[in-house]
Amino acid sequence: MAGSNLGQLLRLSTFGESHGPAIGGVLEGCPAGLQIDQAHIQHMLARRRPGQSKFTSQRNEADEVEILSGLFNGKTTGHPIGLLIRNTDQKPKDYLDIANLYRPGHADFTYQHKYGIRDYRGGGRSSARETALRVAAGAIAMQLLAGAGVQIRACVEQIGTHQSTIDPAAIDWQAVNANPFFFADPSMLPQLEDALKSMRRAGDSIGAQLLLVVSGMPIGLGEPVFDRLDADLGKAMLSINASKAVSFGAGFACVQQRGSEHRDQITPNGFRTNNAGGVLGGISSGQDLIMRVAFKPTSSITIAGDTVDSDNKPTQVITKGRHDPCVGIRAVPIVEAMAALVLADHWLRNRCSRV
Amino acid sequence: MAGSNLGQLLRLSTFGESHGPAIGGVLEGCPAGLQIDQAHIQHMLARRRPGQSKFTSQRNEADEVEILSGLFNGKTTGHPIGLLIRNTDQKPKDYLDIANLYRPGHADFTYQHKYGIRDYRGGGRSSARETALRVAAGAIAMQLLAGAGVQIRACVEQIGTHQSTIDPAAIDWQAVNANPFFFADPSMLPQLEDALKSMRRAGDSIGAQLLLVVSGMPIGLGEPVFDRLDADLGKAMLSINASKAVSFGAGFACVQQRGSEHRDQITPNGFRTNNAGGVLGGISSGQDLIMRVAFKPTSSITIAGDTVDSDNKPTQVITKGRHDPCVGIRAVPIVEAMAALVLADHWLRNRCSRV
Amino acid sequence: MAGSNLGQLLRLSTFGESHGPAIGGVLEGCPAGLQIDQAHIQHMLARRRPGQSKFTSQRNEADEVEILSGLFNGKTTGHPIGLLIRNTDQKPKDYLDIANLYRPGHADFTYQHKYGIRDYRGGGRSSARETALRVAAGAIAMQLLAGAGVQIRACVEQIGTHQSTIDPAAIDWQAVNANPFFFADPSMLPQLEDALKSMRRAGDSIGAQLLLVVSGMPIGLGEPVFDRLDADLGKAMLSINASKAVSFGAGFACVQQRGSEHRDQITPNGFRTNNAGGVLGGISSGQDLIMRVAFKPTSSITIAGDTVDSDNKPTQVITKGRHDPCVGIRAVPIVEAMAALVLADHWLRNRCSRV
Amino acid sequence: MAGSNLGQLLRLSTFGESHGPAIGGVLEGCPAGLQIDQAHIQHMLARRRPGQSKFTSQRNEADEVEILSGLFNGKTTGHPIGLLIRNTDQKPKDYLDIANLYRPGHADFTYQHKYGIRDYRGGGRSSARETALRVAAGAIAMQLLAGAGVQIRACVEQIGTHQSTIDPAAIDWQAVNANPFFFADPSMLPQLEDALKSMRRAGDSIGAQLLLVVSGMPIGLGEPVFDRLDADLGKAMLSINASKAVSFGAGFACVQQRGSEHRDQITPNGFRTNNAGGVLGGISSGQDLIMRVAFKPTSSITIAGDTVDSDNKPTQVITKGRHDPCVGIRAVPIVEAMAALVLADHWLRNRCSRV
Repeated sequence: MAGSNLGQLLRLSTFGESHGPAIGGVLEGCPAGLQIDQAHIQHMLARRRPGQSKFTSQRNEADEVEILSGLFNGKTTGHPIGLLIRNTDQKPKDYLDIANLYRPGHADFTYQHKYGIRDYRGGGRSSARETALRVAAGAIAMQLLAGAGVQIRACVEQIGTHQSTIDPAAIDWQAVNANPFFFADPSMLPQLEDALKSMRRAGDSIGAQLLLVVSGMPIGLGEPVFDRLDADLGKAMLSINASKAVSFGAGFACVQQRGSEHRDQITPNGFRTNNAGGVLGGISSGQDLIMRVAFKPTSSITIAGDTVDSDNKPTQVITKGRHDPCVGIRAVPIVEAMAALVLADHWLRNRCSRV
Repeated sequence: MAGSNLGQLLRLSTFGESHGPAIGGVLEGCPAGLQIDQAHIQHMLARRRPGQSKFTSQRNEADEVEILSGLFNGKTTGHPIGLLIRNTDQKPKDYLDIANLYRPGHADFTYQHKYGIRDYRGGGRSSARETALRVAAGAIAMQLLAGAGVQIRACVEQIGTHQSTIDPAAIDWQAVNANPFFFADPSMLPQLEDALKSMRRAGDSIGAQLLLVVSGMPIGLGEPVFDRLDADLGKAMLSINASKAVSFGAGFACVQQRGSEHRDQITPNGFRTNNAGGVLGGISSGQDLIMRVAFKPTSSITIAGDTVDSDNKPTQVITKGRHDPCVGIRAVPIVEAMAALVLADHWLRNRCSRV
Repeated sequence: MAGSNLGQLLRLSTFGESHGPAIGGVLEGCPAGLQIDQAHIQHMLARRRPGQSKFTSQRNEADEVEILSGLFNGKTTGHPIGLLIRNTDQKPKDYLDIANLYRPGHADFTYQHKYGIRDYRGGGRSSARETALRVAAGAIAMQLLAGAGVQIRACVEQIGTHQSTIDPAAIDWQAVNANPFFFADPSMLPQLEDALKSMRRAGDSIGAQLLLVVSGMPIGLGEPVFDRLDADLGKAMLSINASKAVSFGAGFACVQQRGSEHRDQITPNGFRTNNAGGVLGGISSGQDLIMRVAFKPTSSITIAGDTVDSDNKPTQVITKGRHDPCVGIRAVPIVEAMAALVLADHWLRNRCSRV
Repeated sequence: MAGSNLGQLLRLSTFGESHGPAIGGVLEGCPAGLQIDQAHIQHMLARRRPGQSKFTSQRNEADEVEILSGLFNGKTTGHPIGLLIRNTDQKPKDYLDIANLYRPGHADFTYQHKYGIRDYRGGGRSSARETALRVAAGAIAMQLLAGAGVQIRACVEQIGTHQSTIDPAAIDWQAVNANPFFFADPSMLPQLEDALKSMRRAGDSIGAQLLLVVSGMPIGLGEPVFDRLDADLGKAMLSINASKAVSFGAGFACVQQRGSEHRDQITPNGFRTNNAGGVLGGISSGQDLIMRVAFKPTSSITIAGDTVDSDNKPTQVITKGRHDPCVGIRAVPIVEAMAALVLADHWLRNRCSRV
C-alpha cells in the first residue's frame, strides 16, 4: 500500500527508480510566502551527488532539480511543490547479470518475494538514487526552519575504527564541509584517505557513524506518546538506505548510566548536561538535538559472495556497476534533509498546541 | 495536533493520565473472525504490572482491562475494539510538591512550555502508566499474528554493566519468563539481584538494554522507502517512555564491519548470518527479526537533584512516589506489544502488494 | 481496516455498539487551554437523546458522558480526551428474531457479507446510537470555534412534502430550538404534528431535509484540490446514518442556473448573493456556510416487508424495537456536531497556511 | 497543510498550476503485476481534453502523460507511479488584467486571503487543468478494477432545463460516448446544440447534472461509520471544481418518500428496487452504484460582472481566456476517474476485513 510518503503537515511523496527516466516527488504543505533559494537546493544536492571524488561512486548525474509548481515570483504559494530530476547516466546493462540473482545484503530477495516482479536495473526503487529527492525537499524544509533560527548540521564521526572524539558542541562545521569525508576531526583525514584507498583496492567497503547536531531548537516540538520528536526522527533516519541503528544523546551508553548521572540537571542558566540529546518526553527541550546514525558497509563490492538464483540454485555474485567504498559519507546531506523534513513538520504541528 | 495514534490499517489511539479516572484506547482495523483470548491479554498486562516484586514500583494497580466493543460471542467483528482500564491506586497528593517544579529528566519542563498547562499528578500523560494500553492492544495483535505463525519475544540483555552474551537464537524463553528480570542469562540472576538492591539502597536507578526476537517471520512485510519495517519498528520502540536508542542486527557494530563481513550470504538453505537483523531494503526477509532497545535509568530517584521552579528560581527536587530502580525491566512486555502492533499492521498492509 | 476516525489535526475515533456495554471515543488534537463547559456537552446530547417526545424512539438512555482524560482543572491539556457513555436501556432480546434475517434498508446484509459475522443486537455498530459520541465530541469542537466567533446551527427545513420557505438568513433560531421538530417555520407545527401522528399510526416513516447555517465564518478554511472545505463537510454529513444527499448554496438548482445568475458578484460591502453557499474553490469566503442534507425515512417500520434469511429463503420482516417515525429530526444536533468537527479541524489546519 | 492527496491504500498526490511548466502527480499503492494499457489512459485524457469541439474551451493541450516510474516491462511493480503532463498552450498574458481583481465565482478572493499570495495565471492551482492528473490516475484505477469486473460509467443527465428521463439501467453507453455532450438521451442532441450555441452567443454559461453508474460492484466495499463508501465518494465528487451537490439513489427525493416505499425489499433474486443507490450502512450491496453530481455554470463568462480589486474598490470584470459554456460536460471522465480512485482504494481496504 501507499508507503512512499513522510510527514503530516509537511508531506513528501517520492517516486522513481535508479535507471528509469526520472525521479521526482511532491512536497505538500509548505506554507505560503517563503522565498526559495534554488542555489541552496542545488548546493545540497551537489553534496550528495556521486562522481565527485575518488571516494564516491563514479556515476555522473547532474542532479539538476526542476521545480514544476508551487512557486510564484520566487515565493511559495502554499500549493504542492513538484520536483523532478531526470536520470541521465543510467547504465542498465550493467545489471543484466543480476536479473535472476539475489545480491546478498540488497533488497533483491525481498522485493522479488513481496511483489513477484522486480525492476533489477540498478536496484530500481531500492537504490539510494531515490534519496536525491529527499535532499531537494529537505533543502526547502531547511530554508523554512532557517527563518525560525534552526540550524541543521551533520558530519561523519566514525569510519571503521577511525573515530572522532571531538565533542558535538566543539565541532568546526566549516572544516567539516571543506573535507571530502565530512569528517568531524579534520586532523584524521590522512588516515581516512589511506583506509578508504585500501578498502577500494580490496574491493571491499566499510561502515560509518554519522552525528546530527541541530542548534537553535525551539522548545515544544513533538507530540507525546506515539508521534514523539525522537520517534519520528528515528523513523526518518531508519528509512535511509543502509542505516541500521539510531541513538539520542547518551544513546546505548545510557544502559550503563545511573539515574543520578543521566538526568540533565537544570539551573537558571539552562541544562547542565545533555544526556537526553535535546528531547524530554518526546518533546524538544531547546537544547541542541544530538543524534547518531549507523550506516552499514555497502554490499556492492567486487569480492565474490555466495548467493542463489531465482531457482534457489547456488551461485556467486560480484557487484559490478559504480559504487562507494563507504556509503555513509554521502549520507551526510541525507541525514540533514531528513532531520529538516521531520523538524519542519513538527514545527508546523506545534502551531496547534494551544488555543 | 493528533499524535496519540499508531498504525495505518491496524490503528491504536490511546488516552488517559497517570492519576486520572482511567486510561483507555481504541484499536481500529482488527479483522473480523479472530477468537479473542482475554486471559492472554490479562497475562500480558500482569507482566507489565507494577507492585509485583521488590524490584518494581510499589504502585498496586489491578490493570483489569474491560473490552467495551468489537467482540460478539468472543470473536472480533471487524469494528473498533474499545479498551478501558480504571485507575484505582492513584495518590495524586504525592505530587503536589512538584506542581511548580521541573523534575530533571522528566517531561515537566517540555509539557509546561509546549502547552502552557500541565497535569502534574504523576506525570499525567507522560507517565509510563499509558503503556498498559499498548500492552492490552498489543496482546490482541499478538493473537492475530499467532495465527500466521509469528512469535514475538523480548528479554533484558543488559542491566548496567551486567551483560548477557547468550546468542539470540539460543535463548531459553521459558527461563526468561520465569525470572523477575526477564533476563536472557538466568545464571546471572544473583549478581543482578545484588546490583538492584544496592541501587535501591542508594536511591538511584540504572539503565537496561532489551533484545527483541521475532521468529516465524513472513517474507515481505514492510513498504519500501519511508514506511520500511525497520523504520516503523524503530519509531514504535522510540515512542516508549525512557527509550534512547534502537538497532537492528549488527546495529552500531556495523560501523566497524566490512561489506564482505556484513552482507549475509545466501545459500539454498537460507542466509548464512543475520547481520541485517531480518530486514533487507526495509522488508522482512523471513529471517528472525533481531532488534535492541536502550532504556535510560529513570530520573525518579531519591537523590536530590538541581532544578528550577516555574519562576526559573533554583531549587532541588527529590522524587517521591513509587518507582522502579530499573524501568527497562518492565518494558519487556511493552517492547513485545509495540512489535506486535507494527508487525500486524504491516502484515495487513502486505495483503495489498500484488494484484 | 481502520475507518472509524475523522479529521487530521482534530481527530475523533469512536467505538461501541448499540447494545454492548458502552459507546466511547477519543478526541485527539484539541489545543490546550480551552475551558470546557460540560453542561453544554450534556445539553447537546439531550437534543439528540431518544425518549424525549412522542415523536421519537422510546428507548430511554441517560446519555451521560464521562470525560476520562485530557482535562485538568476544567481546561484542556492538549492531550487526548477520552469520552464514555454507558448503555443502560439495552433490550437485545428485541432483536433475536432478526438474527438470521436481513432487514431491508439496513446494514444487516452488507455487514454479514463483508465480515462473515454480525452483532445483530440493535444493528450493532450500524445503529445511530454511535452518533451520540459524535455529538459529545462535536460539542467540544463547537466550544473551540465559539472562541473564534463561529456559530453553528441546523434545523429541519422539510418533512415529507411539508417544506419551510423561510430564507436561511431569516430563521428565528430560538423558535427552532423551542419546537420538538427543530423546524425552521414554527407556523407549520400543527400540520407537522398531524403528519407524524398519521405516520406513526400507519406504522410507517418519512424523510427529512436539514439545513445547516454557519455564521461568523473565518475566511480561508479549507485546502485546495482534495481536502476542500465543502468536500470534507460533504463527507462528514454523508457519514451520518440515513443521509442520502448533500448540497451547498444553490445546490442541485445550479443545474438550471446561468453563470451570470449563479456567480455571486462582489461589492465593497461584500457578496451580493450566496449561491456558492460560502465556499469558493473549496475555501471559506467568510459568507455564511449554507448546506442541506437529505435523510431517508427509516426502514424500521411495522409494515411487513419482503426479505430473505441467511439461506436466501424468502420471508417477511416487521421491525419491532423502539424507533422514530422521522429520524431526520434527531439528526439536527448530529449535523451541527459534524460541522463543528470539520470546521475546527480546518480552523487548526489553516494556522499552517502562511510562513 | 498537506491536502492535495486522496486515498488510504491507493493514494494520489497531485501538483501543478494551469499556466506553470507542468502538472503531475504520484499514484502510490497500486499493487504489483497489473498490465498497464497506456492507450486507455490517453483515451480517458482525450475525453477530458479541451479544444475538441465548438462546445468546449479552445485551449489546445496535447495532454500527453509521461509515466516516469513504477512500471517494468509494461507491468506495475508495486512502487509509486510518477505521472507528468507538460503544459504547452499557456497564455498567461490573458490573465494580467485580473491580477489585482477577484473574479466573482472564482477562487481568487479566497486564495488571496488564505495565502497572502496568488498565482493568478489562469487560476493557478484552482484551475480545472489540475483534473487531467486525476483522469490519468483514475484510468489506472479503472484498469485495476476492470480485473474485478467493475464497470464505471458517467454521463450528462441534465443541462439547464433539458433533462434526460432515461432510467440509469437503460442507458445506451455507446451512444453516450458517441455524442459530444456525453448526454444520456441522444434524441435530445438537437435541442442541446441550440441551447449551448445560444449560451455561447450570449457570452453566458449553464449548469449540468451528471449521473454515475457503476455495475459489477463487489459486495462489501466501504468502512462503517466515517469512511463509508458513499461518504468517500461524496467527498471525491465534491472535490471536483464546480461541483455543488451530490446524491445517492433516490437522493433528495427521499425527503418525500415513506419508509415502506424507500426501503429496497429483498427477494431470493436480489433487491426489488434501488432507492439506496447501491450502498447500505456505508457498504456496497452489490447493486449498481447510482450517484448524481451537480455542476454549477462556470463564472468565466464575457458578461461584465461587479467585483472589487485588492484595495476593495468597486470595478467590473469580463473573463477573457478560453472557456467552456457548460463545464459539466467535460466533467464526465473526471467523475469516472474519481469514482475509480475511491472504489479501487476501498477494494484494497476490503482485503483486510476478515482474518
